[in-house]
Amino acid sequence: MLLRRIAVTRPTRAITSGLANPNTPRRLWPHRACASCATTQTPPKPTADHRQLGVQQELFTTSVYSPGSPILLPNGARIFNRLVEFLRKQYIRYGFQEVITPTIYKKALWAKSGHLENYADDMFTVTSTSPSRRDTAENGEEDEYGLKPMNCPGHCLIFASQRRSYRDLPIRYADFSPLHRNEISGALSGLTRVRRFHQDDGHIFCRPSQIEEEIKKTLDFVRIAYKVFKLGPYRLTLSTRPADHYIGTAEDWEGAEGALKRALDASGQDWTVNEGDGAFYGPKIDIILRDSDGKEHQTATIQLDFQLPKRFELEYQAPAPELERRGESTADADKLAESGPVTPVLIHRAVLGSVERLMALLIEHYNGKWPFWLNPRQVVILTVNDSEPVLDMARSARDHLLGVAGSQITDDGPVSNATQISVDIDERKTSLGAKVREAKAKGYGVIVTVGPRQLGKGTVTIEMNGLDQDAGASQSHKEMTPQELLDLLKSKIDSYE
Amino acid sequence: MLLRRIAVTRPTRAITSGLANPNTPRRLWPHRACASCATTQTPPKPTADHRQLGVQQELFTTSVYSPGSPILLPNGARIFNRLVEFLRKQYIRYGFQEVITPTIYKKALWAKSGHLENYADDMFTVTSTSPSRRDTAENGEEDEYGLKPMNCPGHCLIFASQRRSYRDLPIRYADFSPLHRNEISGALSGLTRVRRFHQDDGHIFCRPSQIEEEIKKTLDFVRIAYKVFKLGPYRLTLSTRPADHYIGTAEDWEGAEGALKRALDASGQDWTVNEGDGAFYGPKIDIILRDSDGKEHQTATIQLDFQLPKRFELEYQAPAPELERRGESTADADKLAESGPVTPVLIHRAVLGSVERLMALLIEHYNGKWPFWLNPRQVVILTVNDSEPVLDMARSARDHLLGVAGSQITDDGPVSNATQISVDIDERKTSLGAKVREAKAKGYGVIVTVGPRQLGKGTVTIEMNGLDQDAGASQSHKEMTPQELLDLLKSKIDSYE
Ligand SMILES: [Zn+2]
Ligand SMILES: [Zn+2]
Repeated sequence: MLLRRIAVTRPTRAITSGLANPNTPRRLWPHRACASCATTQTPPKPTADHRQLGVQQELFTTSVYSPGSPILLPNGARIFNRLVEFLRKQYIRYGFQEVITPTIYKKALWAKSGHLENYADDMFTVTSTSPSRRDTAENGEEDEYGLKPMNCPGHCLIFASQRRSYRDLPIRYADFSPLHRNEISGALSGLTRVRRFHQDDGHIFCRPSQIEEEIKKTLDFVRIAYKVFKLGPYRLTLSTRPADHYIGTAEDWEGAEGALKRALDASGQDWTVNEGDGAFYGPKIDIILRDSDGKEHQTATIQLDFQLPKRFELEYQAPAPELERRGESTADADKLAESGPVTPVLIHRAVLGSVERLMALLIEHYNGKWPFWLNPRQVVILTVNDSEPVLDMARSARDHLLGVAGSQITDDGPVSNATQISVDIDERKTSLGAKVREAKAKGYGVIVTVGPRQLGKGTVTIEMNGLDQDAGASQSHKEMTPQELLDLLKSKIDSYE
Repeated sequence: MLLRRIAVTRPTRAITSGLANPNTPRRLWPHRACASCATTQTPPKPTADHRQLGVQQELFTTSVYSPGSPILLPNGARIFNRLVEFLRKQYIRYGFQEVITPTIYKKALWAKSGHLENYADDMFTVTSTSPSRRDTAENGEEDEYGLKPMNCPGHCLIFASQRRSYRDLPIRYADFSPLHRNEISGALSGLTRVRRFHQDDGHIFCRPSQIEEEIKKTLDFVRIAYKVFKLGPYRLTLSTRPADHYIGTAEDWEGAEGALKRALDASGQDWTVNEGDGAFYGPKIDIILRDSDGKEHQTATIQLDFQLPKRFELEYQAPAPELERRGESTADADKLAESGPVTPVLIHRAVLGSVERLMALLIEHYNGKWPFWLNPRQVVILTVNDSEPVLDMARSARDHLLGVAGSQITDDGPVSNATQISVDIDERKTSLGAKVREAKAKGYGVIVTVGPRQLGKGTVTIEMNGLDQDAGASQSHKEMTPQELLDLLKSKIDSYE
């Protein structure tokens, strides 16, 4: 066990391998060493509470039977799934491959990864409920599992499952598995202090010479993501080698910190150094987001790890292993040198951090007024009366917007062009005025009216609620066909508006 | 506790609320009462083993650290995600709303649902690893969780979290959560005998008068899904009221069984009755699929449940509750009658069953030759030489097929039109012939060649591998632009070919 061999002081949770705890960032971060931030910071003002808005918009609920495990209602699940879809699209550009990994692993794995020694307090233990289903006759450690708090050990198993060459690297795995960390029950709240959550987790296995490029790409990914959400500004901090206890050579650290600094410089963002503040197993970059109240939240993390690949005895084959380890070019070495095993560098990284916590941030940031592409209540169709032709037209417009109208489905076949736009119909006999007021209060992005007037023209009347605010009043009610409306909404979604 | 009060004989796992165990269907089902099936059945022949193909195609792997929890590698995760996407598109048509629910619930929930009494052997217990993190001072039952084997109790909590009216029904929840059931270790194998799996799980809460329509829709969903996968034929069996031990009134059962029979008749499929074979809490329909070897697999299930809604005290408000309970029209009663609470009917249903097991069936059914839309290796681009222009064109064609080319991304912004087509490049210096052979052996659906000849014309040469088999040899090599190829591939994906 490496941890014992290097006689490090008993590590606390903060220095266990892996990404930051999803629960810490609610605390106000000290603005140390950030001049520009200090000058522009506005004093905290009372803000929207994501728990209240969560109830109001029917996003999530909680239960006494599952403290700390929020239940995402249909509206919340829509937002969650759209965030995941957004990430999956970016993954194609950034070369991440999704994997689906176990929820429980034998304690032996957590011993190997170091979690059992350093992180046990935060973990849940899993055992057979019935003695008859145990794997071994005795009720020993071999029968106990740990409920995973992180995906890294599982991804190390995947890396180790095949022989790897330097040509295969970097290998980037992404995983949206639910994770569990055992917070004390008094601290649990909403989507921010939880026991169960999902990370947009990724692990990059790369060559020492690839660190800089991978960090650059990750910082670019972060920049694009937060631009889309209109979150920020954020600042970047680099935590460097601790003075005393660290693994690897000083040379390893210098090489890695140099690569991180060059990537930070190239990012064009402000960044500062937290000298000696890195974990004992590698330097890291934190992305610290400032919300509209001036409160700071740590969201994305990029953590280099020299330790876990050693614990899992990961290796890849490279020519001139000595050069390779130092991150020097092996282009010429290719034909000259004997090939040998080299330990890859592991980069833990999350762009959103905890998806649930980012949802909480977005709920408060937008104060319930979602951009159309994320809005769980995108379109509502209001009927002016309950005559058969009006109801028919309303339903046919709904099916058209959903992409499941008869004309959009091949011959009694499956749906293939569903739009994933959320469309409700309000067919109640209530007055149109009351329906419009309720639709606005509920936060629908587009309000569509269908009545006898529209019936004749084959169009619907639409009102953008909170969208196109720059447009004059004359623009607020438009007549268009369902297909024209669909095209308009698709273009909003495609441009993340 | 209802189970005790009605003095039912101690139920075995088979009659616990919820869907069938994912592990049973590997056994050959007796062809009782199915004449057409008996005559057309072919004798079993040796068949492809999904475990072998799984290794060969790098779909999944297993680990000693997680027995019974298969690890889906990138290729397997692609298939898994495409199956989930397929279902999500159909959910829009069939009115299912996705929810995201906890993995662990306190034992008190499993006591309420009856699982603790009837299903404990199959469950895992979850506890705090550290005594300091317990919710209560004593180490009592209140601190123990069960790792969920089913989603139904969670969905009942969601139903109960709001006041419901008859106008809100049917409410249909879908859930792709990982589930855990504690199979004995000797039985574990591949994707079919597992401890961790995902169901395409759905629960419909409806009025008694809506049973028939909901069953019809579910049978239609099943028909369309299996047609897309080209799986089948399948037969349907209706399991009716047990002779002695059952809950609810004989009238309830007759009404429900009548509705199921009418829906089965309307389906146009063969169906048979297993008299008295229903669970004590409701009748069910099993979908029994016959594979190319004549082996039968139970996949989809539709299970009516009179019990769980009572255990969770679920209710909705309806006018004329007496009529409502009998499934009679309340159209006229609307204004006349006093409103009151009625217990909804719960329908558990899964179309694929276990997603992992369906993957195993598909692997063996296609014998590794995937239809293009599901193929984890869709396109490979082979370079004829390693000159800069050829490499550039190959990479630009790849980006275009992925939907992440510069022209497809708005102004240094996020990716929004990623195609999710899998595209690899083989840039090695190996001969083209060797590359083509390897690509075919690996099962790539489309082989694209880029060399000096293509460079001049701005087209790529494509070869369909196993696709368009009807087309003559002259059709097997085509020249087209990357955009023409993309359009072709998209149309294949949209029509599930
Ligand atoms: Zn990690
Ligand atoms: Zn169920």
